[in-house]
Amino acid sequence: MAVVGVIGGGQLARMMIPPATALGLEIRVLAEAADSSARLAASAVGDYRDTAAVLAFAEGCDVITFDHEHVPQEVLRALVAAGAAVHPGPDALLYAQDKLQMRERLSQLGVAQPDWARVSSADELGQFLTDHAGRAVVKTPRGGYDGKGVRVVDDPAQVADWLADGPLLAEELVRFDRELAQLIARRPSGDARLWPLVETVQRGGVCAEVIAPAPQLTDAQERAAAEIATTIAHGLGVTGVLAVELFQAADGRVLVNELAMRPHNSGHVTIEGSTTSQFEQHLRAVLDWPLGDTTPRAPWGVMINVFGGLPDDRIAAALAHQPEAKVHAYGKGQRPGRKAGHVTVIGAELDDVVYRARAAASHFDA
Amino acid sequence: MAVVGVIGGGQLARMMIPPATALGLEIRVLAEAADSSARLAASAVGDYRDTAAVLAFAEGCDVITFDHEHVPQEVLRALVAAGAAVHPGPDALLYAQDKLQMRERLSQLGVAQPDWARVSSADELGQFLTDHAGRAVVKTPRGGYDGKGVRVVDDPAQVADWLADGPLLAEELVRFDRELAQLIARRPSGDARLWPLVETVQRGGVCAEVIAPAPQLTDAQERAAAEIATTIAHGLGVTGVLAVELFQAADGRVLVNELAMRPHNSGHVTIEGSTTSQFEQHLRAVLDWPLGDTTPRAPWGVMINVFGGLPDDRIAAALAHQPEAKVHAYGKGQRPGRKAGHVTVIGAELDDVVYRARAAASHFDA
Repeated sequence: MAVVGVIGGGQLARMMIPPATALGLEIRVLAEAADSSARLAASAVGDYRDTAAVLAFAEGCDVITFDHEHVPQEVLRALVAAGAAVHPGPDALLYAQDKLQMRERLSQLGVAQPDWARVSSADELGQFLTDHAGRAVVKTPRGGYDGKGVRVVDDPAQVADWLADGPLLAEELVRFDRELAQLIARRPSGDARLWPLVETVQRGGVCAEVIAPAPQLTDAQERAAAEIATTIAHGLGVTGVLAVELFQAADGRVLVNELAMRPHNSGHVTIEGSTTSQFEQHLRAVLDWPLGDTTPRAPWGVMINVFGGLPDDRIAAALAHQPEAKVHAYGKGQRPGRKAGHVTVIGAELDDVVYRARAAASHFDA
Repeated sequence: MAVVGVIGGGQLARMMIPPATALGLEIRVLAEAADSSARLAASAVGDYRDTAAVLAFAEGCDVITFDHEHVPQEVLRALVAAGAAVHPGPDALLYAQDKLQMRERLSQLGVAQPDWARVSSADELGQFLTDHAGRAVVKTPRGGYDGKGVRVVDDPAQVADWLADGPLLAEELVRFDRELAQLIARRPSGDARLWPLVETVQRGGVCAEVIAPAPQLTDAQERAAAEIATTIAHGLGVTGVLAVELFQAADGRVLVNELAMRPHNSGHVTIEGSTTSQFEQHLRAVLDWPLGDTTPRAPWGVMINVFGGLPDDRIAAALAHQPEAKVHAYGKGQRPGRKAGHVTVIGAELDDVVYRARAAASHFDA
């Protein structure tokens, strides 16, 4: 019975518990706190930045994987040096940790992405602004997520605080029609499988809703997204699930926005919507087991995030109202704005699926 | 966050973990041993016949339910007396524990079942044999399952050992074309939902394969099975999942064979095959939450039991061979003949689904 160790006890680790249970795997979680979302499988509580704690946790695990990408490179490399199978490995994870390195590497791979530049000074950023109609997206290379570490600027002074800490990533402000996400899973031995391309709807920089597959795709867009994700997965040596967040630009191009090397919010719809969910596939991939079929279970699937909390009485009301809806609660305490769960509906008619998912999710709006 | 306590740590408790995780429930298991199948959720190890141990376990649980029906009535009644919400309750469970009581009660409810009699002596059994062409099925009222406690006899001497211990259940040996199972879930407040009627294939008195829905059903058979299960669920006050095992007799009748008041082997196919699995529905039902939709996810589903064990390398081989197959391993040690897991495939064409499920399961035959 293989033992999978997951560093981080958030909802992504939590949602690995069901497929681990089904596949007969032992899942162990290194959790941040005793009340973490994945506490049921927590075998240790500790700091993922503490090399000794992480090495002790990894003892007896057949593979180490992650709930998040924040484990420092030195800790990852200590794990590898100690003989642990780490998936994704440090060389791949680097590109999910550092947006500047990611842009550089994707340029080398010839993957379509927004214009970008490394800017180390107000002058350099000023030049980038001049070259891009006076506006740019500026990102800190590390530590950003869900809209944090990202600013749209028209003057270098707007990121003076960040520039003091080191070089930044400046990106073309892409005019896009919508955002897409392409998920793929890859085994260490090389085999990879894609899921259908999905549309993601962001609100306030955070994923609000996912429609699977993305409606009204052209064949060219599907092919472009699949090729981008495949190129990145192989080119960066990603193992496990890779999520490629994409812009569908107003001029028709499909461009890489961000990468995540783990199960991703845009793939939650696969729990019900795919023969093999992203969580099951991630476990299979990091163990170098054969990957599962990713055929959809239904023509359409819609996932809606729930923020704040999911009190039992609201869950019951949502289930009463929408018996087809699947509610996922992450076992977190109530806190305004916190990603606390999601709702998924799958079915044959997009309008109906969207309606039911939104109707179920509406029970959780404060 | 509701807390569900499950008495018994077998695979049924284990398979409640995924939906409990999804619904944000806390699941606690009273396990027989530290290495029980549901050990991930075990909050205590103890004997389900030990009133004090069970009462201590129930402390802090919002509802108590079961992995099996073997908890003695006196323990169940002590739980109720202590204020625990017990689902199914002792009055209902009695009929899953005692086959004579079950037959008497079903006769009162007017439910179609094989001819039967309570026999307390060789003479009484002899008379029953005479009345039924010289053959009968004799069952011990308690303790039988998976073919144990059941004998087909043509002479009372063949159960002389059992008769010494008390009255037995004698049943007509039904000539049947096949076996069916009707699952239903009922909430304490009364609402109930059926799943489609399935065919079960037994080998050596043990469930080997389930086909969902049962092929070539007549409307009358479907209606009869649904009405029987609904009558029993309400008539016996069952809460949670009720499995009604049925004979499709050679003369066309649908007759009750056995009852189980818990998720049941015949319902494992609902994990992938239904919008709401029997494990999720059981949790919702015992909490008196709204029941979920039971529409199939695909036209056909086939579940095949795996006996002995599921070593990792065999799982990998099965998954490589059949990427659409879902493998469920119960985390038990290898032992010949032991129910150790199951395989499910769902899809549009019955032949294809049967083929793929059997091909995947074949990797586990010793």
